[in-house]
Amino acid sequence: MSTLPDPALGAAVKAADRAHVFHSWSAQGLIDPLAVAGAEGSYFWDFEGNRYLDFSSQLVNTNIGHQHPRVVAAIQEQAARLCTFAPGFAVEPRSEAARLIAGRTPGDLNRIFFTNGGAEAVENAVRMARLHTGRPKVLSAYRSYHGATAAAIHLTGDPRRWPNDSGAAGVVHFWAPFLYRSPFHAETEEQECERALRHLEDTVVFEGPATVAAIVLETVPGTAGIMVPPDGYLAGVREICDRYGIVFVLDEVMAGFGRTGRWFAADHWGVVPDLMTFAKGVNSGYVPLGGVAISDEIAATFEKRPYPGGLTYSGHPLACASAVATITTMAEEGIVENAARIGADVLGPGLRELAERHPAVGEVRGLGVFWALELVRDRTTREPLVPYNAAGEDNAPMAALAAACRAAGLWPFVNMNRIHVVPPCTVTDSEAKDGLALLDEALTVADRHTA
Amino acid sequence: MSTLPDPALGAAVKAADRAHVFHSWSAQGLIDPLAVAGAEGSYFWDFEGNRYLDFSSQLVNTNIGHQHPRVVAAIQEQAARLCTFAPGFAVEPRSEAARLIAGRTPGDLNRIFFTNGGAEAVENAVRMARLHTGRPKVLSAYRSYHGATAAAIHLTGDPRRWPNDSGAAGVVHFWAPFLYRSPFHAETEEQECERALRHLEDTVVFEGPATVAAIVLETVPGTAGIMVPPDGYLAGVREICDRYGIVFVLDEVMAGFGRTGRWFAADHWGVVPDLMTFAKGVNSGYVPLGGVAISDEIAATFEKRPYPGGLTYSGHPLACASAVATITTMAEEGIVENAARIGADVLGPGLRELAERHPAVGEVRGLGVFWALELVRDRTTREPLVPYNAAGEDNAPMAALAAACRAAGLWPFVNMNRIHVVPPCTVTDSEAKDGLALLDEALTVADRHTA
Ligand SMILES: Cc1ncc(COP(=O)(O)O)c(C=O)c1O
Ligand SMILES: Cc1ncc(COP(=O)(O)O)c(C=O)c1O
Repeated sequence: MSTLPDPALGAAVKAADRAHVFHSWSAQGLIDPLAVAGAEGSYFWDFEGNRYLDFSSQLVNTNIGHQHPRVVAAIQEQAARLCTFAPGFAVEPRSEAARLIAGRTPGDLNRIFFTNGGAEAVENAVRMARLHTGRPKVLSAYRSYHGATAAAIHLTGDPRRWPNDSGAAGVVHFWAPFLYRSPFHAETEEQECERALRHLEDTVVFEGPATVAAIVLETVPGTAGIMVPPDGYLAGVREICDRYGIVFVLDEVMAGFGRTGRWFAADHWGVVPDLMTFAKGVNSGYVPLGGVAISDEIAATFEKRPYPGGLTYSGHPLACASAVATITTMAEEGIVENAARIGADVLGPGLRELAERHPAVGEVRGLGVFWALELVRDRTTREPLVPYNAAGEDNAPMAALAAACRAAGLWPFVNMNRIHVVPPCTVTDSEAKDGLALLDEALTVADRHTA
Repeated sequence: MSTLPDPALGAAVKAADRAHVFHSWSAQGLIDPLAVAGAEGSYFWDFEGNRYLDFSSQLVNTNIGHQHPRVVAAIQEQAARLCTFAPGFAVEPRSEAARLIAGRTPGDLNRIFFTNGGAEAVENAVRMARLHTGRPKVLSAYRSYHGATAAAIHLTGDPRRWPNDSGAAGVVHFWAPFLYRSPFHAETEEQECERALRHLEDTVVFEGPATVAAIVLETVPGTAGIMVPPDGYLAGVREICDRYGIVFVLDEVMAGFGRTGRWFAADHWGVVPDLMTFAKGVNSGYVPLGGVAISDEIAATFEKRPYPGGLTYSGHPLACASAVATITTMAEEGIVENAARIGADVLGPGLRELAERHPAVGEVRGLGVFWALELVRDRTTREPLVPYNAAGEDNAPMAALAAACRAAGLWPFVNMNRIHVVPPCTVTDSEAKDGLALLDEALTVADRHTA
């Protein structure tokens, strides 16, 4: 896509958007979408000639960066071969994508059920767990996001659930570990871990273990704040699941495929769930794709008994071909290793340095290219820079900070009182450093609201 | 894709599929997926050199046929420009697809919310209706399919709902018109129409109109049997919705975009719903895409108030670019008109002729390239050739018929006691005639089971 400014085309694109596109999660009359002309690597640009360093990876999905030439070429080649084919057949890119994904997933997650995205992956994981166990309830965490279809949004633990909540979906929410705002009044990671596990097991026991089909957890909760779990937590959840015959579902839609500096976030702790959901990074979203990786035991449940779920585009050939190219490229170009190195050498140290200089930064946490800055009015009380689920005037400090980032040419991922620093896994040292410098400037806007 | 047989590659594709791909709606150990090497127009072929006339359009989605060169080229060009971009921005193919779709939809369905497929479209239509009305319940028809995510599968009126049914989703099922097996003991189309409307209104009244958010209907129910509604039925449903302040949702995921010989099936009766879901034909599934077309009144509800739904790939640029090319090509090449003509001149007359010769054919119904043969053991009693939701031995007659079609080189769409004749909208006269001839042969297998 040309980098030449073309404001007239931009205006036309914007006008048709405003007339005809209904946007996700938005009051349609109160938004002002930026018209985007093109993108490459870690950057995108608008029709006016402004260029942005993409520290959001869009919705944390372009792990391989924008327009990676090998993935683009693979899409073009597969398009020439076979764009679409029904799920009931065996087709080459579908077989190959399943083989490659199963080769990367931990343990015996050997079978892949493909969907179009993350929500459908979660929907199917929940269905599998309920039918495998014959139990109705599913436990998930406050501070989580699992998608917006009916089952997925009920699992979600953020305010987006509220307007969708029927209260009748068989979901029970519990609290996961988060030392900085400990639900358990813990003072160390060890304490937080132990108390969080105790809380979870108590909840299972009082819900009735024989009624609980699954525990669904983001390995590292993403949109909710990138809370890296304490060592031992996920292994503890695995034990609780084993003790009570509960299916352990890890949602790696955002954390998977390189984001944390490993292929899957679960690899950091050597934990193997029974089901693992993925999307986003599997092909960086170049073509809609998601799925569930399934353990041998759960797959066996549906060996003789039909699995009662499906979708027209399960295992879509074009989407699968882009996953094959993405996974191969990530392996051959050391992209996961790059994410790990950037996290350890540049982003981690750089963000901690920013925290020292900016009183608005209450905590820095993350790993790989998956970081959050928790912004506060007061480091002692830890009062968030804006209240939970703030809107309008209440949210003004965060809105101003986001605007300052954008004005400086840095596109941030903003949620509640946090800035997430989530560039592509392909980000270079100098891009990461440039981004940190721009963030440094912008954070002065947040500092003004501190005590 | 080469047409040269390559059995070794086919075996490898099949082996990886069996090891790693978990298939929709299937007992994984009891299926034997055909490995497919390529496709073009109305045909596809396997690795052994066998060629099949695709009278299924896959899952009734390849309305434009396999590998239409203009759509393939558009995907390749957009891939080079910009594969993916987050829903919050304005991007050219998204704006253009929304504009073109809104230009084709009936009435004031001017805003488009994009999803990845049909189920997500239905999920979002239901969410919009519930929030627009503030009411909890949704009415849908027995004999329907609306997708497999939680809200969509609860709406579905076929046995695929049963294993997923929580009984707590706020869905009430009613009976839609179907004269051949009239739920209302009607003897004419007029009677069926009048009684079906009376039944629907009674159901609304007894459920409590103030509790009913939406009535969701396939304009022409697809998977459930292609029951063309009697004239006056949809207009009557529109009136009931208006009388009680209920949102009228037409699901055109399967019937839309040319399938019935009009752009939308609703166009046959001049009916305008409040929300219309689409997927499949919008881009023939070349890239996963679906959506909801939204009336001005419902869009206005979300003008100042945020719409609480979304997905990472809403308005996916690559998917939208393929929709732009598909819609433009269908218009320029007269593909919708072709579907209408083939239905009126070839498939309709041809199938009725088959019915005369084959005692197993109880009824022929449809329009455009959307036809069903209802197969029976006895034309007088109308006993279905196989029982509802038959499996194993009970389903043997239908399994044998499907096998006979495939052995003859015709790939059919089979559901319950029916064969659906649903070739691409681009099917030629001679292909349609070839298909009818192959079906003629195969139907002798079904005739053996008649009284
Ligand atoms: C952890 C997690 N699960 C599920 C989803 C839903 O994915 P999608 O938007 O593709 O439906 C998301 C999206 O952000 C996510 O982050
Ligand atoms: C009428 C109708 N609605 C919804 C769906 C679900 O679409 P998808 O399989 O893309 O989720 C289908 C699929 O066949 C359908 O025919």
